[in-house]
Amino acid sequence: MSDLNQDALELHKKHHGKISVQPKDTLTPDTLARYYTPGVGAVSKHLEAHPEETREYTLKHNTVAIISDGSAVLGLGNIGPQGAIPVMEGKAMLFSALAQVDGFPITLDTQDTEEIIRTVKAIAPVFGGINLEDISAPRAFEIEARLQAELDIPVMHDDQHATAIVALAGLTNALKVAGKTLGSAKVVVVGAGAAGSAVAKLLVEAGAAEVIVTDSKGIVGRHRADLDQYKVQLAELTNPHNIEGNVVAAAHGADAIIGVSVAGSITSEAINAMGDKPIVFALSNPSPEITPAEATAAGAFIVATGRSDYPNQINNVLVFPGFFRGALDHNVKKITNTMKLAAAAALAGLVETPAVDSIIPSVFDERVVPTVAAVIKV
Amino acid sequence: MSDLNQDALELHKKHHGKISVQPKDTLTPDTLARYYTPGVGAVSKHLEAHPEETREYTLKHNTVAIISDGSAVLGLGNIGPQGAIPVMEGKAMLFSALAQVDGFPITLDTQDTEEIIRTVKAIAPVFGGINLEDISAPRAFEIEARLQAELDIPVMHDDQHATAIVALAGLTNALKVAGKTLGSAKVVVVGAGAAGSAVAKLLVEAGAAEVIVTDSKGIVGRHRADLDQYKVQLAELTNPHNIEGNVVAAAHGADAIIGVSVAGSITSEAINAMGDKPIVFALSNPSPEITPAEATAAGAFIVATGRSDYPNQINNVLVFPGFFRGALDHNVKKITNTMKLAAAAALAGLVETPAVDSIIPSVFDERVVPTVAAVIKV
Repeated sequence: MSDLNQDALELHKKHHGKISVQPKDTLTPDTLARYYTPGVGAVSKHLEAHPEETREYTLKHNTVAIISDGSAVLGLGNIGPQGAIPVMEGKAMLFSALAQVDGFPITLDTQDTEEIIRTVKAIAPVFGGINLEDISAPRAFEIEARLQAELDIPVMHDDQHATAIVALAGLTNALKVAGKTLGSAKVVVVGAGAAGSAVAKLLVEAGAAEVIVTDSKGIVGRHRADLDQYKVQLAELTNPHNIEGNVVAAAHGADAIIGVSVAGSITSEAINAMGDKPIVFALSNPSPEITPAEATAAGAFIVATGRSDYPNQINNVLVFPGFFRGALDHNVKKITNTMKLAAAAALAGLVETPAVDSIIPSVFDERVVPTVAAVIKV
Repeated sequence: MSDLNQDALELHKKHHGKISVQPKDTLTPDTLARYYTPGVGAVSKHLEAHPEETREYTLKHNTVAIISDGSAVLGLGNIGPQGAIPVMEGKAMLFSALAQVDGFPITLDTQDTEEIIRTVKAIAPVFGGINLEDISAPRAFEIEARLQAELDIPVMHDDQHATAIVALAGLTNALKVAGKTLGSAKVVVVGAGAAGSAVAKLLVEAGAAEVIVTDSKGIVGRHRADLDQYKVQLAELTNPHNIEGNVVAAAHGADAIIGVSVAGSITSEAINAMGDKPIVFALSNPSPEITPAEATAAGAFIVATGRSDYPNQINNVLVFPGFFRGALDHNVKKITNTMKLAAAAALAGLVETPAVDSIIPSVFDERVVPTVAAVIKV
């Protein structure tokens, strides 16, 4: 086991996790009588009469649920609700440290679509937003759509939309460095799960010339007879020339390849097949689709990963804290494509002079959260 | 509206609630790589393989869910999930401030028994304990019993057991002041809901000579044909002489009367009917069953309420923080009667010289939490 992994285990064991719940004010006999009995009764009565004011008087104002069923955690797969906790608790830590959003992790002991929808609706009253996380496709699509339709708080599946936003931001700057534009670019998305599907859709929305998506069976297109309803929709939106074949065939002449799949799914051969100045985003975590060293050896012009220990960290941590900060601050009830495109543009705009090793701002750039938050509004 | 109520509303609005989620460690590039990607993957993999170690590596170690459906909040009744939030968030604040337990409030948008059980089971993986709160009887009985049977973490319905423990502790010392003993005392419990039922059962368990329970229809006893299964059980455990009638009839010659009902349910007439040195606990919050002034005027020897603005605050805040502190520290998986009796005795023992205005320790007595926590163990 690597030192870093060993360190991570020890650090988690030492602190028993990484978040705690703290009072916002000091407890004294005076505040006890106001925050608790008897004074709290007046607040409860007020909210019984005016439930629409709940945000003003309670934690709902600033609290986001981070919900996962553990079915598609990082690049690790279906590791269940216990395995999922460290990742969700990590998101809560980042929400707080980066955006002063109170995130609370909930991992679910069910992977049934209807049960997940029912559970999230049942616990929604205390939350000002719902961040769905690491739920496998295609269930994630229905869960997100149904919850957004049935709740009056913003619901965002992070793996889809934050990934799509940060990938679009990075690609915008990478193309600039390569002297290309999105409107004439061919982009391959390796992976047609939650992330891949959202990345492809947002690229199309942003005006990419040609987007090709691959899944484990090859290129997604109208020629395929084995697609579910979500991939049929993807086949309609992408692959305009209805090409067939594997990742290498898809990569032929491409300007960029974006991996949101598993380690090994982008090969040197695929990069060799790409056009001039290949842009390679290997975003699977913790194991990228191809290592930066291999990608560079195969001729990649720009390489990005989702990890913090390589340059160009294209990670949704650049999005979700500011995204929910803005949604909470501006009382957003529903996430729109306009907001996603604005967030990608705002994020890309923070890099004044993009370069090969600097296409995206650092996670620690203090301008990131306020800049993203500013555009998440109706 | 009273100044205190106005203050409470303003304070809640100013802070937008009263708890926040905070990181346990500082976020730096180094800690980011350990608490989040890529290092967190090692922790997630470890817990996938060893889910029984989840407590050691995550917030489950110290986190308790405070769950309510808003059906029986304080003495306010069925005020729904929004109205319930300030009370549950208040409990979370007290958990943290008094016992360094991370409590997180969840109010449910359902009052269906099966739906509540299903929801709590679904969200249980991140929690080290479940504090059920302000759920109306008789649903609360089944919800608690089923959850405790089906989960491997401690489940306690606070309104029942914390109330019963603190009432028994207060009564132990009040009887001492009056020169009486529980083994020869007649105690009337006004209210046969969640709290009343648990108070009566724990008093019987502790050896009270005669316990009489009343509900809105009068004295609970074997003569009644209108009792549900839970009250039938109560009728078997209490009222040994099977007397009939109203609260005044029940109070005839009684040593103590314990109100866990609504304002007005204990009258001066009832206190007049009691025996020598009447002990009156009017525990409904925020409006006691009878005001301390009226009770004293009617001849009460000792008066206690649940409020912080009168002497003798018999409030479950004296119990739940230390109770869960102990359960978490000692890895308790199931709450037993032995633990409840031990907690009551430990709490009563903290008052070295009980007196009329001092039968129970203060909420701010720093010995309370460790003393209760020490006895909550297998």
